[in-house]
Amino acid sequence: MTNEWVVATYQVPDDGDLRKKAESIAVGLTVGTWTDLPAARRAELEPYKGVVVDIRRGQVAADRSRVAHLAIGYPVRNLRADIPSLLTTVFGKLSMDGRIRLIDLKLPDAFVRAFPGPRLGIAGVRQRLGVWGRPLLMSIFKSCIGLSLAELHEQFVAQVEGGVDLVKDDEIFFVDDRAPVFERIALFREALDAHEAKTGRRVLYAVNLTGPVDELVDRAREAVRQGATALLLNVLPYGYDILQRLREDPDIAVPILAHPALAGALYASPHHGIAAPIVLGTLMRLAGADLVLFPSPYGTVPLDAAKAFALRDRLVEPFAGLAPAFPVPSAGIHPGMVPRLLADFGLDHVVNAGGGIHGHPDGPRGGGEAFVAAIEAAVAGVPLEEQAKTCPALDKALAKWGVVA
Amino acid sequence: MTNEWVVATYQVPDDGDLRKKAESIAVGLTVGTWTDLPAARRAELEPYKGVVVDIRRGQVAADRSRVAHLAIGYPVRNLRADIPSLLTTVFGKLSMDGRIRLIDLKLPDAFVRAFPGPRLGIAGVRQRLGVWGRPLLMSIFKSCIGLSLAELHEQFVAQVEGGVDLVKDDEIFFVDDRAPVFERIALFREALDAHEAKTGRRVLYAVNLTGPVDELVDRAREAVRQGATALLLNVLPYGYDILQRLREDPDIAVPILAHPALAGALYASPHHGIAAPIVLGTLMRLAGADLVLFPSPYGTVPLDAAKAFALRDRLVEPFAGLAPAFPVPSAGIHPGMVPRLLADFGLDHVVNAGGGIHGHPDGPRGGGEAFVAAIEAAVAGVPLEEQAKTCPALDKALAKWGVVA
Repeated sequence: MTNEWVVATYQVPDDGDLRKKAESIAVGLTVGTWTDLPAARRAELEPYKGVVVDIRRGQVAADRSRVAHLAIGYPVRNLRADIPSLLTTVFGKLSMDGRIRLIDLKLPDAFVRAFPGPRLGIAGVRQRLGVWGRPLLMSIFKSCIGLSLAELHEQFVAQVEGGVDLVKDDEIFFVDDRAPVFERIALFREALDAHEAKTGRRVLYAVNLTGPVDELVDRAREAVRQGATALLLNVLPYGYDILQRLREDPDIAVPILAHPALAGALYASPHHGIAAPIVLGTLMRLAGADLVLFPSPYGTVPLDAAKAFALRDRLVEPFAGLAPAFPVPSAGIHPGMVPRLLADFGLDHVVNAGGGIHGHPDGPRGGGEAFVAAIEAAVAGVPLEEQAKTCPALDKALAKWGVVA
Repeated sequence: MTNEWVVATYQVPDDGDLRKKAESIAVGLTVGTWTDLPAARRAELEPYKGVVVDIRRGQVAADRSRVAHLAIGYPVRNLRADIPSLLTTVFGKLSMDGRIRLIDLKLPDAFVRAFPGPRLGIAGVRQRLGVWGRPLLMSIFKSCIGLSLAELHEQFVAQVEGGVDLVKDDEIFFVDDRAPVFERIALFREALDAHEAKTGRRVLYAVNLTGPVDELVDRAREAVRQGATALLLNVLPYGYDILQRLREDPDIAVPILAHPALAGALYASPHHGIAAPIVLGTLMRLAGADLVLFPSPYGTVPLDAAKAFALRDRLVEPFAGLAPAFPVPSAGIHPGMVPRLLADFGLDHVVNAGGGIHGHPDGPRGGGEAFVAAIEAAVAGVPLEEQAKTCPALDKALAKWGVVA
């Protein structure tokens, strides 16, 4: 990787001497100083010095303010193949440098290949489920905190029987005294196995992985030993690196769902922080998420479509041979949205519903059925209204939520 | 902690039905739904439900925009005493809820006491150094990446001989093939011991702790076994939780310096993210940082004074019995700034200099001497110009950088 560069592009105000600013970043975040170094020291440090790759003008869509884009190359030899090293280098000190936003990150192939990427990825998760040729369907518990194991079990079974492919815990489910994690894993696994024996269909349950970060690998191993079929991780609150370590452990061979909790604190400002496709796309995939949740462009507080699609692309486009990860656009999803989802995200995404399942007039069983029918119709190119004629659950869903063109 | 609340205050646009918005946060981030629950379920979940504590109008200083402050109480029973649990609950999903910023976080004493806080804190670090009654003095390597062990050793000795109390690695020092971490620790420890034998003064070296997050506790233990006297940690790139786990390990009984790398990505926007006093104050202290670096109000890209002082207060004010941590305002510090630093941050802070030490006309030895003399004078109430008459190094520093009133 000797002669290769990690190229980070920053959005900064279009004022002052941009060349000078760019040079000061290239030098300041690598060798520290340059112009006052003696020739021998320069020769020694040259291979570690950052370079200015590009400077151009731009505009911020949100407020039409004029900005500059500074592209800086960092020698990959300065970096380890982990996210803390990458982020500290390209946006550590620099993140505090006034109005500045990290908007793009290009990584050389050899550097990317030093990361694990998704263990299972889209193909591996489909293999686990035995599902091809259609988007997957996931549902979220209506709530978790404070409920007993029996109550959660009841919710769980209703969701599974509705026909979903995956069920996930609430990401805020940390205190689970009434339904301890290993008891949930065991009891829900029984339900999953019974469902499979009866229907031939396998369903995955993503249990929220919590605890001290330096014990998470051990806890995940134990969870898998006890029957866990998938893991949910609050990647940003715990730090990206633990995702990579979970991914790299050979004993934790189940899909990992990355929850985007806290991501908005990084990506939401138009002038600061880090663009969403990097936070939830590039970095999640490098570190090894198999499925990545992110705000859909359809909810009450959407990620705008351009960003959501750029994020999707980071998860699925060719990336130096890393497996692609499932995009899971979340919020505002009901059965009538499925054709739109399919148009926007293709076959390889996860239809993820909370209210769209639990809020169905017939409850989560009806909600699941309606989604299953909607997905089948959309993939076949059959209008939902047509499909609804033979599926009362879908009919009721469309009556409640309508069809989104 | 049954009847106590974590109260988070959010800044949101002052529009729409604020009461409704606040209620939806209080419910949405705890029990999920409320109005449509049957009475029995409500009774069961009531102890886990969030509450609206306060709604008031405010203004954002940066752009004078009108905003509302929504204070929401979360039952502490929903939380574990760790930062991932706290952040995921109060600003996980919510961080993605459009224009919203976490501006305040009040924690009940019993909850705070479940965190470790700084192991050594201000008193313990002073004890290690045998220094009381004045600010400490820290210097930063001019650069680290790409240099040989011998070159770094030379820089190190010059800084130590200048009279500083602490020397820290560059936070971007991840790839250290030419000066491997355990070799640095051993060689620099020899220099520190020799310095102490000669002068009676102990100096600490904060080595940059890097590696897979789940191995950092073991690596830190090994570093301490091999003679490390302090650790530098990129807390945000690795995640707050590993700081807490390092703090809680009894074998890692050395001060931990928290570097603020990446913090700007969270705090810099006026309308999104999390306020700096929470990111670098409250949370760093809870998790156990002994010293916390943050942008000073004096650099070319300052943290504004009000925020820097609020951050300082979070580190040093009474906090349910947790030890206070040293504020380390960084950037723009030269010897002529010391009286101002003392006025702004009091005796209990760390004067942290990079350029102000290495840029001295006589190099780092002269820079260190000038700072030592400036600190002595400022604490005694002697004008720097007066002190400079008997300290040529200070005289040269003042000639170069001036005195800041």
